[in-house]
Amino acid sequence: MQHHKIVVALGGNALEERGTEPTAENQWKTVRRAAEHLAELSQAGHEIAIVHGNGPQVGRILLASEAAADITPPLPFDVCGAMSQGYIGYHIQRAMKEALLARELGRIPVVSLVTQVLVDEADPAFQNPEKPIGAFCSREEAERLSREKGYVMREDAGRGYRRVVPSPRPQMIVEFETLRRLWDSTIVVLCGGGGIPVVKSTDGHLRGVAAVIDKDLAAGLTARSIGADLLMILTEVEYAAAYFGTPKQMNLTHLTTAEARHYLEEGHFAAGSMKPKVEAAIEFAESAPGRQSVITSLENAGRALRERTGTWIMNA
Amino acid sequence: MQHHKIVVALGGNALEERGTEPTAENQWKTVRRAAEHLAELSQAGHEIAIVHGNGPQVGRILLASEAAADITPPLPFDVCGAMSQGYIGYHIQRAMKEALLARELGRIPVVSLVTQVLVDEADPAFQNPEKPIGAFCSREEAERLSREKGYVMREDAGRGYRRVVPSPRPQMIVEFETLRRLWDSTIVVLCGGGGIPVVKSTDGHLRGVAAVIDKDLAAGLTARSIGADLLMILTEVEYAAAYFGTPKQMNLTHLTTAEARHYLEEGHFAAGSMKPKVEAAIEFAESAPGRQSVITSLENAGRALRERTGTWIMNA
Repeated sequence: MQHHKIVVALGGNALEERGTEPTAENQWKTVRRAAEHLAELSQAGHEIAIVHGNGPQVGRILLASEAAADITPPLPFDVCGAMSQGYIGYHIQRAMKEALLARELGRIPVVSLVTQVLVDEADPAFQNPEKPIGAFCSREEAERLSREKGYVMREDAGRGYRRVVPSPRPQMIVEFETLRRLWDSTIVVLCGGGGIPVVKSTDGHLRGVAAVIDKDLAAGLTARSIGADLLMILTEVEYAAAYFGTPKQMNLTHLTTAEARHYLEEGHFAAGSMKPKVEAAIEFAESAPGRQSVITSLENAGRALRERTGTWIMNA
Repeated sequence: MQHHKIVVALGGNALEERGTEPTAENQWKTVRRAAEHLAELSQAGHEIAIVHGNGPQVGRILLASEAAADITPPLPFDVCGAMSQGYIGYHIQRAMKEALLARELGRIPVVSLVTQVLVDEADPAFQNPEKPIGAFCSREEAERLSREKGYVMREDAGRGYRRVVPSPRPQMIVEFETLRRLWDSTIVVLCGGGGIPVVKSTDGHLRGVAAVIDKDLAAGLTARSIGADLLMILTEVEYAAAYFGTPKQMNLTHLTTAEARHYLEEGHFAAGSMKPKVEAAIEFAESAPGRQSVITSLENAGRALRERTGTWIMNA
């Protein structure tokens, strides 16, 4: 089997099991299981870097921070994102080390980098924030937050109002040089939650912004930047599917980027779920010759490479 | 001037200005000023790594987490520590990059590593926890926490009860290999708050524990492990002093480790303040020939190296 240089995008199910209480102890158990699957890739000789989501975690950090506003100043959203990188990175690096040790690969270093990702203030997403974060609130409270803090508040399906933030495209990984230096020797965990979003002023200074970068797009940017040959997007299902959840459901195995784009345009992939994964997969596969993407489940990560299960997307 | 290989230990005053509200915005302003002083060291040709404290930050993260327990599960203390590394590391790496850019050193990479530090479960500190963390509570609440969660609670100077955790000695930096690979090229921020304390089971697995590692000792361990020649402990005062705060105050400039130990034994240095700094300084200076330590203020970091101000401690 060919040895791949892989950037893995870890979905929320690798960090939290549905239906369990979202405690750190439960996250640790789930991350340990996920690490077994990732260590299997290392054991098979592949080089990996790991990008992970942070949706529920950063949401809870923000909730706790807002709920405790009377006793300690609430933290801005970019800081909450940085904190979630510390939290999740710690668990992943500890769990990976354990899983490697069990495979007599304990000498492979594993480390999480606090990672900033540059976004463009001119990105149209800033004109149309649509990613809800934080707690639900009443209309009056929403109006107050909008007035006092400049938050964009939106009514959310009858459940009350929530703050929405933009989801701009990732442009550059600020700490990329470190990934480059470590890649050959080390399993690097980076761009947690898609990265801490920062914009650049004319003087070259960076400033954190309240935004959410899609972690699959950040993983794709990581893979392009480092010259990986495979972007592996791990999620809950073994395949991306057309007509998903209907009697006509058709699991997709091998797609050209043109075919993938066709299904995308036909609306087969759910927004905020499979759609950004397929978009990231296409973008990476088209970025240079020899690059391909695979979308599959965490449990099938190893098998996907041995038997080519999962949904493979390549440039025809 | 000789170029040094320096591990810098950043005190709390580099992160928070006394008397200001402890918001992320104020921390950012303070960190930016601190970064100016550190970038000066890089500009003078010294190689640096940065270890920082996290006392007030991790305290507030814990407070918020406990205060929000009704809406989201509280986080264990090791996780709060990891989160503080993300928070503070993000600010330091962004501020350092800015300060380097202003000196046309913008190409030097800066990165924060999520860092675990191994401690020994047999460390006597575990039998005598004395580092208070979290909120004050009543005697009844303290008894409940002790019974239900196994916390060690201690009465704190008439202000109520508080949880206390051990402060064991740092034994090994789990992510040391990464520091080693990056040192020559990169300004590495690591061991935030002294590091996330972990113990090793007989099967080699690591487990996070509720403990606080002294950040000056962690900086000393970092300096020894990497083979630095200078441990620079930056704090609020230009000199360690004998008879501090009395009319007899005597600023200490050059000390042999024997002299420093003498002052230490005479009780000139405050516990939890100057004392652990002097201890870390002695330990590093004695660890190998040619190693020395300096304790000075953040503002005098550059001057300390040019004019040898500050308190220098070396092995006679």
